[in-house]
Amino acid sequence: MYGAARAKVLRFQAGDTGQWSIECVAAVKGGTLAPAARLAVESSLSGSMSSDRGAVWTLTGFVSNARYSTAAELKRMSSVSPQLGRPEATCAALIPIKKTPAWWALGQDERRAIFEERSGHIRKAMNYVPEVARQLHHSRDLGEPFDFLTWFEFAPEHQAAFDAMLAELRATEEWHYVEREVDVRLSRLT
Amino acid sequence: MYGAARAKVLRFQAGDTGQWSIECVAAVKGGTLAPAARLAVESSLSGSMSSDRGAVWTLTGFVSNARYSTAAELKRMSSVSPQLGRPEATCAALIPIKKTPAWWALGQDERRAIFEERSGHIRKAMNYVPEVARQLHHSRDLGEPFDFLTWFEFAPEHQAAFDAMLAELRATEEWHYVEREVDVRLSRLT
Repeated sequence: MYGAARAKVLRFQAGDTGQWSIECVAAVKGGTLAPAARLAVESSLSGSMSSDRGAVWTLTGFVSNARYSTAAELKRMSSVSPQLGRPEATCAALIPIKKTPAWWALGQDERRAIFEERSGHIRKAMNYVPEVARQLHHSRDLGEPFDFLTWFEFAPEHQAAFDAMLAELRATEEWHYVEREVDVRLSRLT
Repeated sequence: MYGAARAKVLRFQAGDTGQWSIECVAAVKGGTLAPAARLAVESSLSGSMSSDRGAVWTLTGFVSNARYSTAAELKRMSSVSPQLGRPEATCAALIPIKKTPAWWALGQDERRAIFEERSGHIRKAMNYVPEVARQLHHSRDLGEPFDFLTWFEFAPEHQAAFDAMLAELRATEEWHYVEREVDVRLSRLT
């Protein structure tokens, strides 16, 4: 339906197939997602629709431009961010989040102030960036059940650091605007 | 494919059917769009795919949250903005725009500074708001040929004011970052 030319739309499909083993599905806030054995991550345009058969759940989102980062923050972040797909990064997390209507009714200045000036989302995450690779997918504009699907990859020895980062972020003012969050932990098969 | 629950995805389809008569298709910058007799505007989820047969072109975009407006600007704008569908607003314009890769590589602070502080996009448009109704649709994240599809509605006696607004905006620094723009003028078929 949508052009494949430039859009980077990814589909996260839980079921019996896929390159990632689902280790744990935990509801952080609001309703959880059903358990499943495997997760397949693929371009929403590459997979045939028949692959939806047997899916326990499917979440879709697109990679887009940064919505809050300043030029200086983008530059600092990109200079230290690892790529996805590092051989040693055999652990992953998929964290779908839905924010409240109150969040979406705020102005850009208010959202930025909460996100960074008061919650330090970027500067807190930056401390963990050399170890944790991250890709954000936007879902809200597709009418999906979540607003964001963030995908993280890291080596097993960095799991404690990753958990510490999540704890730091979840304690911020920004998270008052999260009404649903699920934490899906995965490990790469072979 | 995508959930219908909350997303507001609209399809603008030029061809032989639709509630709007296409009066003029003009390339402002870059390649134009093919001429056609009519434009149909519908939810991308309501129309059957068979309606695509005979379409000369189809553009798709979603309504989303404001990306640059402050809370004060949102409040001022919403207090004076007319609704779509006013009986007297029998003229419309669909203006698809694509911005340059340089625009999309900027930080949020730089884009905001160009958009409003230096180009006055909101404050210039605000002068015309009581007469001109407007709805912005985002296309870039869908892999579409344009980044934005803006839809305007106004009464025939306000066409000169509408043209003056476009001329003001097209003379700004923000428009240096526009690499393609088409101006489609329409009139409503009662």
